[in-house]
Amino acid sequence: MVERVTIALDAMGGDAGPSVVVPAALAFSARHPNLKLLLVGKRETIQSHFHTDTKLEIIDASEIVGMDEIPGDALRKKKDSSLRVCVNLVKEGRADACVSAGNTGALMATARFVLKTLPGIDRPAIMAIVPTIEDHAHMLDLGANSDCNAKNLFQFAIMGSVVASEVENISSPRVGLLNIGEEDIKGNDTIREAANLLSNSSLNYIGFIEGDSISKQKADVIVADGFSGNVALKTMEGTANLLINYLKDAFRSNFYSRVVGALAAPVFNSLSEQVDPRVYNGAVLVGLNGIVVKSHGGADQLAFERAIQTAMVEVEKSVPKKIHQFLLEMEQ
Amino acid sequence: MVERVTIALDAMGGDAGPSVVVPAALAFSARHPNLKLLLVGKRETIQSHFHTDTKLEIIDASEIVGMDEIPGDALRKKKDSSLRVCVNLVKEGRADACVSAGNTGALMATARFVLKTLPGIDRPAIMAIVPTIEDHAHMLDLGANSDCNAKNLFQFAIMGSVVASEVENISSPRVGLLNIGEEDIKGNDTIREAANLLSNSSLNYIGFIEGDSISKQKADVIVADGFSGNVALKTMEGTANLLINYLKDAFRSNFYSRVVGALAAPVFNSLSEQVDPRVYNGAVLVGLNGIVVKSHGGADQLAFERAIQTAMVEVEKSVPKKIHQFLLEMEQ
Repeated sequence: MVERVTIALDAMGGDAGPSVVVPAALAFSARHPNLKLLLVGKRETIQSHFHTDTKLEIIDASEIVGMDEIPGDALRKKKDSSLRVCVNLVKEGRADACVSAGNTGALMATARFVLKTLPGIDRPAIMAIVPTIEDHAHMLDLGANSDCNAKNLFQFAIMGSVVASEVENISSPRVGLLNIGEEDIKGNDTIREAANLLSNSSLNYIGFIEGDSISKQKADVIVADGFSGNVALKTMEGTANLLINYLKDAFRSNFYSRVVGALAAPVFNSLSEQVDPRVYNGAVLVGLNGIVVKSHGGADQLAFERAIQTAMVEVEKSVPKKIHQFLLEMEQ
Repeated sequence: MVERVTIALDAMGGDAGPSVVVPAALAFSARHPNLKLLLVGKRETIQSHFHTDTKLEIIDASEIVGMDEIPGDALRKKKDSSLRVCVNLVKEGRADACVSAGNTGALMATARFVLKTLPGIDRPAIMAIVPTIEDHAHMLDLGANSDCNAKNLFQFAIMGSVVASEVENISSPRVGLLNIGEEDIKGNDTIREAANLLSNSSLNYIGFIEGDSISKQKADVIVADGFSGNVALKTMEGTANLLINYLKDAFRSNFYSRVVGALAAPVFNSLSEQVDPRVYNGAVLVGLNGIVVKSHGGADQLAFERAIQTAMVEVEKSVPKKIHQFLLEMEQ
């Protein structure tokens, strides 16, 4: 007997708010009858986006956190924001997870304040999947912690390993540390100390990974401080866009290239899923007493559905509980 | 009257040593009769790669620094290495610049020890060009300094601005700081302090740049600590390789795609220069009392020629002298 899963969605979050979240919720719930979605935000605004009868439940929230609002301000001053109410629903057990495309800093600050970190975890991290030559890898931290010590990195590795193990069904995921060289002497004191902690742990630590190896599938989990992890993730995005632009220009440069470009359209379309960043949408705020998923602020319907999917998998695999259990076992 | 330029080449450096460096030197000097190239290394080995009479001069050096050798060891123990002799030639004024595809750490340690940094510069940095949507940008540090303070970043910005100004003939290059967000509050204390120093300087500081904007040509100079700069550079390389692989696979997937792929060959070839990493070869160790260029260890002939080209431009533009002058003017 499968228990029903409930996920709260921040209907007001992101660049497009309910005009993306509501259609995504309708489409996703149509495919998953066992899932209950709660739409959190301004009731009338949300209802104006329903074009058919629906059983989706609306939870009122009178305020909206702006995309550029300072996280501390949002936390202190907007206690009835759609973002805050979403996280509260998880805290109260009325939702198994929540998804927001809102302000990342505010979501992290709110989630940390309301849900607290798991025992044994000092700082939550942002974790997502990145495309690789074979399939994908899990990477963290992607920007929550711009300064990290060795212990933080070690805890990220533990969390990443548990997530990859649960979500991908890998018994002992390979964990790599993002560094500026593969040799033991490379990098700074923090990263070498983290390498030392990992080498002496039960994790399947495989060593340092350089930026050009992220996509080579050498590791299932790539651990970085939030600064270099964020730089790597966004540089991937920028480089992919640059190459796609070069490609488009090349196929527009003369009559011959335009004809070949038209013939090649089906081939390029077959490529689209592999290079489509929407497919990778849905970052998990990992290390909390609850499941919180961050969607890209500019997500469209397909991308937002992926973020809901990510939350659903986290719930089904009871990820926070598994991380807690793993930490307890390590202490013994 | 143009003065003759002399450049010393580490003939033994890189994965391929003289089998790449000698042909590159022959080809490059054939196109630049005013340039004098000195080939540094084991005389007999170098001579065995000459297939025609040549006027290229050989300078003896009996030792070779290994690619994985610890920089400090190479510096102390291999005083007659081809790498060391190259740098010595610059110090002695017998060469205007040197180029090596050898061990980066050893080259930096040797160059810093022999040539010293310019007055007002605490640490040299590795600087190179990266492809952008319009053309390219200059980026530093790419891995020499894995920990940087705000003053280091500020000095990198000064050096980068002078180089971009001289090499690209831009009167006031736009300088951006690599960060994990564009808002003032983003990042860590170091980067915010560097931003503050830059805002109060005469440089054309435009603010924070995120990883996905490196390729958008928002800035002519992108300043980063050596850790995140190296991560960004290598992630670009890895992502480009990943996409090229996806593309190749897509054009091999069935009969139709193979036919279209064959028709598209000229279009892909026209793309090759834009995405060819060899075109961007030749990183400058900037901030030294002399010109030292690092070629990629795996450079082929074309790539190594680009590194010689980079050195030649640095000499013609008297970059170290211009940085020194700029620093003197700032002090006034």
